[in-house]
Amino acid sequence: MSISTLSCPLPITEYKNVLLAHGGGGKLTHQLIQKMFLPRFNNPLLEPLHDGAIIDVKAGRLAFSTDSYVVNPIFFPGGNIGDLAINGTVNDLAMCGARPLYLSVGFIIEEGFPLEELWSVVCSMELAAKAAGVTVVTGDTKVVEHGKGDKLFINTSGIGVVGNNVNIHPSRIRVGDKIILNGTIGDHGIAILSKREGLEFESPILSDTAPLNGIVSEILDITDQIHTMRDPTRGGIASTMNEIAEQSNKGIVLYEDSIPVTEEVRGACEIFGFDPLYIANEGKFIAIVSPEEAEKVLAVMQTHPLGINAAIIGEVVPGHPGSVVLKTRIGSSRIVDMISGEQLPRIC
Amino acid sequence: MSISTLSCPLPITEYKNVLLAHGGGGKLTHQLIQKMFLPRFNNPLLEPLHDGAIIDVKAGRLAFSTDSYVVNPIFFPGGNIGDLAINGTVNDLAMCGARPLYLSVGFIIEEGFPLEELWSVVCSMELAAKAAGVTVVTGDTKVVEHGKGDKLFINTSGIGVVGNNVNIHPSRIRVGDKIILNGTIGDHGIAILSKREGLEFESPILSDTAPLNGIVSEILDITDQIHTMRDPTRGGIASTMNEIAEQSNKGIVLYEDSIPVTEEVRGACEIFGFDPLYIANEGKFIAIVSPEEAEKVLAVMQTHPLGINAAIIGEVVPGHPGSVVLKTRIGSSRIVDMISGEQLPRIC
Repeated sequence: MSISTLSCPLPITEYKNVLLAHGGGGKLTHQLIQKMFLPRFNNPLLEPLHDGAIIDVKAGRLAFSTDSYVVNPIFFPGGNIGDLAINGTVNDLAMCGARPLYLSVGFIIEEGFPLEELWSVVCSMELAAKAAGVTVVTGDTKVVEHGKGDKLFINTSGIGVVGNNVNIHPSRIRVGDKIILNGTIGDHGIAILSKREGLEFESPILSDTAPLNGIVSEILDITDQIHTMRDPTRGGIASTMNEIAEQSNKGIVLYEDSIPVTEEVRGACEIFGFDPLYIANEGKFIAIVSPEEAEKVLAVMQTHPLGINAAIIGEVVPGHPGSVVLKTRIGSSRIVDMISGEQLPRIC
Repeated sequence: MSISTLSCPLPITEYKNVLLAHGGGGKLTHQLIQKMFLPRFNNPLLEPLHDGAIIDVKAGRLAFSTDSYVVNPIFFPGGNIGDLAINGTVNDLAMCGARPLYLSVGFIIEEGFPLEELWSVVCSMELAAKAAGVTVVTGDTKVVEHGKGDKLFINTSGIGVVGNNVNIHPSRIRVGDKIILNGTIGDHGIAILSKREGLEFESPILSDTAPLNGIVSEILDITDQIHTMRDPTRGGIASTMNEIAEQSNKGIVLYEDSIPVTEEVRGACEIFGFDPLYIANEGKFIAIVSPEEAEKVLAVMQTHPLGINAAIIGEVVPGHPGSVVLKTRIGSSRIVDMISGEQLPRIC
């Protein structure tokens, strides 16, 4: 169980497990909201019994994003489905160049799910929201019969404000642009896999789940030459780079040597026959930046705790539009395709 | 299957059922988005491969709401989980006094779910969104293993704009205010129940799922004396009125005689021992209006197709603050409590 349980004692003791009636819209739903959700997400905008939150906005551009989280297991080394759900939507907004502000949370809970685990998830969500500087302003709870769900699914949707000078779009990508990655790849996927398979490593591999809005805001502050950002979650960096190559109709080259991977992740990938390029990340992003500004952006990223291992891992090239090519360590080239099939289901 | 399938032939024929890989973020996810979602939700804001949508807003107040839909069965008389998910969040925004504009859609699909049924749901969502005048601007798709979900769950979140003169809040409720309901209660819950139990009625009971933003906008246009609105979904009108009584700390009286219920719903409730006051609705709302403006609001509602059976069903009284009392047909009074336990799980 997460350490957060220790600091906030379980506020409901009449029931040990979630009942169908907790999703019925009646007394038990209200108890859940009043005792478990409101104290943790406490803020003036969250009106528990209203159908939505009212927020004041200035004229301008908003980013709006949604993601459902079905990760299995829900507790894993380095995090749980709760902080993952907060960080994931924060990161989607950050990738739009937005400052994330408001989140909604929708729980779909399987009947019989231990209230203690729900509480632990909710406490983690509170901490993650605080760390990212976002507020949970509205929510919903549904319960499905035992066997018709899998413990807990969470949807988070979010709203953020896009700054005036920010323009993140694949159409801005130019030949010569540099591709910067903020750190090592594959940590999240291998952390989930290790928990699923009961693997033990000398030093445990932790999920990299983290809010990226802080580091993103620092690089947006110093240049308007960040053409595109994207976080390589499901499908890994390979799928993300393919999406961008396709959308921009540009060729992309990645340098295998430059892509940071820990020894532990590399080793686990070798054992399981996985390619780290296809493994999910939850605290990583790539920024595609004009060549003139790339070193400056890299330097700023490296001063941030989430960018210590940042590196330029590739560039946009005139050849092979729409495709991604990897220059391997041994000097050869190979096409890196989008993931087909499913390597690690329910990774997020 | 819904009639919408007839007008839009299934665009994917290589697979009959949803595979885990459709949620993997790779080729099959992209095929699903490109062939099934984009053509139906087509609009300039929906950028399939970006992490969120960018929307332009004017300065002012926005409403932000979320709901997950886990209704079982997913196809029922009068609707399906798709139009329910669109209408439900449209209605939550309308209840905030907002004009609903943008929705997000998050699918959680059980592996093996027939693509044909998914297509039918998506086509219904397109029609429902058009009818409500909202655009689906961003989305997400996850797939869980067979047996770890139940066909299809949908989260919709939404953003709407609140007009300058609108101020919907239980704190505005005054003694003497009239409670107006736009039509018959219990239709949705009984429609779901009849499908679940395989019941046949002489004339089938249809869900009342419908977008309420049109009728709400008409009454907001004629007066600023609408103090609160709420849609009595889960837990029915009894739970909704209790929420409002509690939040406003006012007493509420309902007149049983004045509450519209069809003969069919009344009959079904008698057979099953249900009280229609506790049965879910998906196209109904109550408006609490100053006594001076109540008849005017009622008259406008009755001219709208979704308000033909609108009626004043109760009022706010000086006595029993925080409680709801029903004056019954036979002249007695009884307290109407919030639902406890669970009458009809997974009704929405």
